[in-house]
Amino acid sequence: MAAHYRSFRSSVPGLLLLLQAAFIILFYFFISDGQDFIPAPAYAAFQDVNHMLVFGFGFFFLFLRRYGFSSTGFNLLTIVLGVQCSVLLEDLLTFLLQRQTQGGLRRIAKAVVSMTAVVISTGAVLGKANPVQLIVMAVVELAAFHGSRGINSVFLQAPDNRTMMHVHLFGAYFGLALSSRFSEPSPRSEKSRRTPKSDLFSMLGTLFLWVFWPSFSFVLVAEGRDRAISNTYFALAASTVAAFVLSALTTKDGKFHMTHIQSAVLAGGVAVGYAAHSIEYPWIAMILGLLASLVTILGSYCMQRCLNPALKIHDTSGVHFTFGLPAVLGGLAQVILLVVTLVVLFRLGSLVLTHVGAFCVTISVALITGFITG
Amino acid sequence: MAAHYRSFRSSVPGLLLLLQAAFIILFYFFISDGQDFIPAPAYAAFQDVNHMLVFGFGFFFLFLRRYGFSSTGFNLLTIVLGVQCSVLLEDLLTFLLQRQTQGGLRRIAKAVVSMTAVVISTGAVLGKANPVQLIVMAVVELAAFHGSRGINSVFLQAPDNRTMMHVHLFGAYFGLALSSRFSEPSPRSEKSRRTPKSDLFSMLGTLFLWVFWPSFSFVLVAEGRDRAISNTYFALAASTVAAFVLSALTTKDGKFHMTHIQSAVLAGGVAVGYAAHSIEYPWIAMILGLLASLVTILGSYCMQRCLNPALKIHDTSGVHFTFGLPAVLGGLAQVILLVVTLVVLFRLGSLVLTHVGAFCVTISVALITGFITG
Amino acid sequence: MAAHYRSFRSSVPGLLLLLQAAFIILFYFFISDGQDFIPAPAYAAFQDVNHMLVFGFGFFFLFLRRYGFSSTGFNLLTIVLGVQCSVLLEDLLTFLLQRQTQGGLRRIAKAVVSMTAVVISTGAVLGKANPVQLIVMAVVELAAFHGSRGINSVFLQAPDNRTMMHVHLFGAYFGLALSSRFSEPSPRSEKSRRTPKSDLFSMLGTLFLWVFWPSFSFVLVAEGRDRAISNTYFALAASTVAAFVLSALTTKDGKFHMTHIQSAVLAGGVAVGYAAHSIEYPWIAMILGLLASLVTILGSYCMQRCLNPALKIHDTSGVHFTFGLPAVLGGLAQVILLVVTLVVLFRLGSLVLTHVGAFCVTISVALITGFITG
Repeated sequence: MAAHYRSFRSSVPGLLLLLQAAFIILFYFFISDGQDFIPAPAYAAFQDVNHMLVFGFGFFFLFLRRYGFSSTGFNLLTIVLGVQCSVLLEDLLTFLLQRQTQGGLRRIAKAVVSMTAVVISTGAVLGKANPVQLIVMAVVELAAFHGSRGINSVFLQAPDNRTMMHVHLFGAYFGLALSSRFSEPSPRSEKSRRTPKSDLFSMLGTLFLWVFWPSFSFVLVAEGRDRAISNTYFALAASTVAAFVLSALTTKDGKFHMTHIQSAVLAGGVAVGYAAHSIEYPWIAMILGLLASLVTILGSYCMQRCLNPALKIHDTSGVHFTFGLPAVLGGLAQVILLVVTLVVLFRLGSLVLTHVGAFCVTISVALITGFITG
Repeated sequence: MAAHYRSFRSSVPGLLLLLQAAFIILFYFFISDGQDFIPAPAYAAFQDVNHMLVFGFGFFFLFLRRYGFSSTGFNLLTIVLGVQCSVLLEDLLTFLLQRQTQGGLRRIAKAVVSMTAVVISTGAVLGKANPVQLIVMAVVELAAFHGSRGINSVFLQAPDNRTMMHVHLFGAYFGLALSSRFSEPSPRSEKSRRTPKSDLFSMLGTLFLWVFWPSFSFVLVAEGRDRAISNTYFALAASTVAAFVLSALTTKDGKFHMTHIQSAVLAGGVAVGYAAHSIEYPWIAMILGLLASLVTILGSYCMQRCLNPALKIHDTSGVHFTFGLPAVLGGLAQVILLVVTLVVLFRLGSLVLTHVGAFCVTISVALITGFITG
Repeated sequence: MAAHYRSFRSSVPGLLLLLQAAFIILFYFFISDGQDFIPAPAYAAFQDVNHMLVFGFGFFFLFLRRYGFSSTGFNLLTIVLGVQCSVLLEDLLTFLLQRQTQGGLRRIAKAVVSMTAVVISTGAVLGKANPVQLIVMAVVELAAFHGSRGINSVFLQAPDNRTMMHVHLFGAYFGLALSSRFSEPSPRSEKSRRTPKSDLFSMLGTLFLWVFWPSFSFVLVAEGRDRAISNTYFALAASTVAAFVLSALTTKDGKFHMTHIQSAVLAGGVAVGYAAHSIEYPWIAMILGLLASLVTILGSYCMQRCLNPALKIHDTSGVHFTFGLPAVLGGLAQVILLVVTLVVLFRLGSLVLTHVGAFCVTISVALITGFITG
């Protein structure tokens, strides 16, 4: 064990060096200098998403580590590797689909959003995978995600922004499929110990994610930004209220249980992601937020008691019910909204099928590639 | 006691569900879809104010709780409930005053700013009121605040932006009037214990408020934004220096006392709020910042020794001297500046009276409604 | 000792009052009201830099203090004093060079950037200088920095933005020259104790600096902002990877060593600062980031073993290798890039000489004034 551990230690720097060298060489050959005029609010939104990824997810998954800073440090390392990799893959996709190349800021912003999938997957295998496995996972997952986006673009003619919205869905199911290949760690081990201090940091991470979530919608959406932000905010608000209600109802002593709240406050944001720019009235977003919170809390009960033991999945951070189920709900809601809107317009068939198709492609690519990577 | 506590526990989810259902139904009937073009810096400023409310006030009032995260979590719950309530009330006000409806982002930004009043009031009754009382307080206070804004708009023709500036004043005096109806908790109780760790978080909250305060001015001010930000920054700077000076002078050992500093660094920002866009030279803002800091520190001595025992007020977080007194000073300063400016223009009477009137209306509505709510 | 300490205590408020009074009087006479239209992304970038200075450096240098909050509080005090001082000096410089006066926000943004030099220097004398010395240092250093900028502007015709880019270089070498005049504190003293908790805060500070570093480039650069942000991001990414690699290689047990990582992740940002807007391809920025990280880690070994004992420098926070060496590397890289670009254009001579000249002026002014201040 100790020898294996040492050999793993010595392989990390080598792997990192190799990857970084490969990235620089590929950048040298492929990444041109795309100068771009920066649209004004884009810069603020990019910084928010960057902030959210480094601080939000850095702390959100901090609950079972003994030392917070090594975890947040490693989170940063994964992000910078992934962003470079994602810029390259995005460029490859742009080249293959013969689209226009984009400016520097937009390129990085999209890469940072793509990284969300990897960070979510990391949550599912936290404490089970070692650093080398996590780095390999990041590269493979990004390739699979961009592959899935490419399939959606080519065969379903889904616009670029919509394929990016599947990022939470992909991250959650890739992570789940992957985690089923790892053995469950002993629950008494030192590594999975929770402390009040680590809970506090986890809460901090949740707050960071909550505050910056509207910026996420902002980056993803091309038009209707005002509506997207408004709907995202109200969905988050409704799911926050629902999270506190359900948390108090499901625990025996009526106390608020922080683990539930952490998962459920974000559910509304995930669920509204697909349709944020197209929902016309805030009350629809609010109901979606309520439902997402309900699905998350119920999901967390069912999963951990029935499903996970059966499928031998050990989902450390509960990414299935935090990000997976609300994303499924969001996909469903988008389809229902489209049906309601379009049934009068007789243009029903193709558009709905495109959405359902893109959804199925994403989820199946996530599960298959996750299994293979595992 | 235990039975009462249990019944309170069981009433929280019911109350929350009821409120959320009511909000969704009211949103369904009244809130239309206001699409809006987002002016570029508005988005960044909105995110800052959102960040400030969740993190700044979440940590600022964290000094006497045993577990930080339940306090910040509850702060988030109050904010999301209040923002929904405030959007509805704002819409009602817009309808009654027959103004134009506003876009999604502006609507939420104004609601978030209104919530500041509630969060400040919460500071005055912290550790004395239970969650149910706090939630009821939030709804009643927002109704009273919007009522006060309505009175100012109709009878004094005060512009919409100016009525929003009374938010700190209203929050502080509503909270004070409310806190006089609560009995003082025993000082030795577990809940009011301070720890170095909680002091650190409180300092963190102060820093968040300090950094994002200029954005607050930015959101409130319609024109002269460059000047407003500049004046707010210099007022904050001067009051920070004064806070350190006065803190070292008033303590016996010449040490900096963190409680003083936390209250006084923000005083400049509060005081300059009313006049930020109209002060012509930064040195006026700096003197205002100095005076605000002085008023706060002296106020904290007088209040806690003389006034509070006499009036049976127990102001847990010192919101009176942190937000109330500097706001009074700011109101005075604005009137003095107007007098100085307008005395040559012979338009003195009406404008000054409008300001004084709006000020008196706000403070009296705050005190009366606070008492009644109590 | 105790008496000296008491007299020092009593002199702090007096010094602060004196400075603040002087600032207000000078503002009264010299600072006019510069109204300005705020360019949209400028506001977000200003807030980021402000956030970065207060939180990033506030925590970055928090590793050896017993109580975090007094350190972050004092950091805030230094910043507000320095910003006021810097606005005055900048105005004096504008007046002497007969340039156009600037609007409020730009003025403060530049002053905040200038303060970075002071905050970096503070890192070098942390735990050795007392508050009075630190405040005097801030004023003297800002005067020297603006003097150095003036020399560059007048004699070398360097544009205003470029002279601001020397801020890290100046801060590091001023701090080093200063620290050589202080005696080394006993390593066993209570004040220089490190704790896991303080390490966590230091890591937090690093993350804040990392996230907001692109905004720093954004504020400094006048044109080519999209490119500047992109290059800064990739340089930071590459130096983060290199930091982890080198940290694992240089420690015996192959563990990541947080002190190395904290210094080295930022090295890329410092190094790319000079040339961020002019580097055409991201791979150049990435290589620069790698080299900067290498220089920092190697530097930290050489310095602490050979150079510092010889020169009697005790660089508490390692500002020499964190900010000094990467800035030297960045200056070199800029010159090399210019040579490569311009050698074909036959305009080689003057421009390169300007850069080299500005670089030498800055570093020598920093060292000389640092010594004298010491």
